[in-house]
Amino acid sequence: MSFDDGYIAVDWGTTNRRAYAVDPGGRVTDSFEDERGLMAVPRGGFDAAAAEIRQRLGDRPMLLAGMVGSNRGWREAPYVPCPAGPEALAANILWIEPGRTGIVPGASQTGPAGADVMRGEEVQVLGAVAACLVPPDCLICHPGTHAKWIVMKEGRIDSFRTMMTGELFSLLKKHSILAEQLRGEAEPDASFREGAGAALGGQELLSALFGIRARHVLGESRGDAASYASGLLIGSDVRAGLSLPGNGPVALIGRPDLCQLYAAALTGAGRDTVEVDGATAFLAGIHMLTEML
Amino acid sequence: MSFDDGYIAVDWGTTNRRAYAVDPGGRVTDSFEDERGLMAVPRGGFDAAAAEIRQRLGDRPMLLAGMVGSNRGWREAPYVPCPAGPEALAANILWIEPGRTGIVPGASQTGPAGADVMRGEEVQVLGAVAACLVPPDCLICHPGTHAKWIVMKEGRIDSFRTMMTGELFSLLKKHSILAEQLRGEAEPDASFREGAGAALGGQELLSALFGIRARHVLGESRGDAASYASGLLIGSDVRAGLSLPGNGPVALIGRPDLCQLYAAALTGAGRDTVEVDGATAFLAGIHMLTEML
Repeated sequence: MSFDDGYIAVDWGTTNRRAYAVDPGGRVTDSFEDERGLMAVPRGGFDAAAAEIRQRLGDRPMLLAGMVGSNRGWREAPYVPCPAGPEALAANILWIEPGRTGIVPGASQTGPAGADVMRGEEVQVLGAVAACLVPPDCLICHPGTHAKWIVMKEGRIDSFRTMMTGELFSLLKKHSILAEQLRGEAEPDASFREGAGAALGGQELLSALFGIRARHVLGESRGDAASYASGLLIGSDVRAGLSLPGNGPVALIGRPDLCQLYAAALTGAGRDTVEVDGATAFLAGIHMLTEML
Repeated sequence: MSFDDGYIAVDWGTTNRRAYAVDPGGRVTDSFEDERGLMAVPRGGFDAAAAEIRQRLGDRPMLLAGMVGSNRGWREAPYVPCPAGPEALAANILWIEPGRTGIVPGASQTGPAGADVMRGEEVQVLGAVAACLVPPDCLICHPGTHAKWIVMKEGRIDSFRTMMTGELFSLLKKHSILAEQLRGEAEPDASFREGAGAALGGQELLSALFGIRARHVLGESRGDAASYASGLLIGSDVRAGLSLPGNGPVALIGRPDLCQLYAAALTGAGRDTVEVDGATAFLAGIHMLTEML
């Protein structure tokens, strides 16, 4: 049984996993998503957790990507250094069982551009190029807990930069003096645009965030502080990201709700965007790799 | 019994309180510090907690400052709007018992400079000016959980800006993906200066912080990541703070260990510093106020 006869694609992250059964033509015939991310799998439990996927989606060859290949995951897959293209990814798959179960490598960067790593996003961005959803030369933003800005050149990941934007927002919501005021969900509304505009205009994050507290204490607070704070963070992120090379629209790949927030900030910065659903890009990337095996 | 016959000065914060018995000449004759900050005083327990101070230091008039005057404290003292000088502070003391027990007001800012509040630092900076420890026109930095940059003009607090620097460092140490690497104490060493230099050179905090994680994953991590991260945060703080007006040395008022870190970053930015111990400045400020009663 080879990948040409159909396969299973698994995007396995820290908190969730999504698995798809794909027919030889690249069409998804079945899929599921659950919360058996890395955190929910006991040490030594990945063989069983992967077997469970086959029980649900059929006994087929399987390619996995994401944090499942990290040192907290099933087995540690290598990082392919930048510039990283489809060939390097396919050549460095970590085969748990040759030709049957493999983990796609991540991508890494060292040198003057700064040490950086990714796992999972590389499949999505190379897949988006392969499926002609984004051009081979462009700037991509992949929002998330650790947002990635990725410079694509000639269809390869040329360089990238990770921002702790999503994690910092989560820390502020859960544990900071602002927690009480940040209970709502961030929306791309007027408050979000105001926060993003302040950050894009150069306002320092460390002080702008405290301003939320000060307005509250002075009785000037607004009900939509979560959107404003998200705007400050994403605006800071976008300001830094746009210093990377790349003309034309910025391609946003990822969760649609997060992409909408980034699109609003990028619009505020005068930059056009193209949005690509992360799941679509992921499936395109895995399909591209199976065709190279 | 009046303040002219000696008094008690209390710096009462969220986690600690420091109380001093002061003789008519301004000399401290007795003092103690404990962990009965706001968090450790039950609702309705401030009368007893203040009586305990008198039991330890004598039955004298008492002036208190800091978060004890916040809505989480004993009673809510007002905020004096900027520009805020000694007269406004003295005139707005919240007397729990007139002439005997009073809480010094905080300072606030509204308008185009941005909403901001302080409680406790105002006593220290006005005290430092009154005691000629800093000039009446200068830029002051008061490091802490919420660091303050304060523009002094003609001996008054003209404007100020709060940075969540200390709180953010604490969040990263306790709850972030970097927690494991940030276990050490921050020191003004070569790693600190490297981090501060990167931030002063314009490196974006959100990405520089993730670089700590990436170097760890790639096996390039250093043992002194806490100092480096502290340098990144304080360097970002200093970069923003130095955009405020004020020539000459920056006056650092606060905890000596924190002042040393800020002094290292300010030196890296080519700016001279003068360091003033926060307790000395606090006592000078309370003494100045008692002389105006």
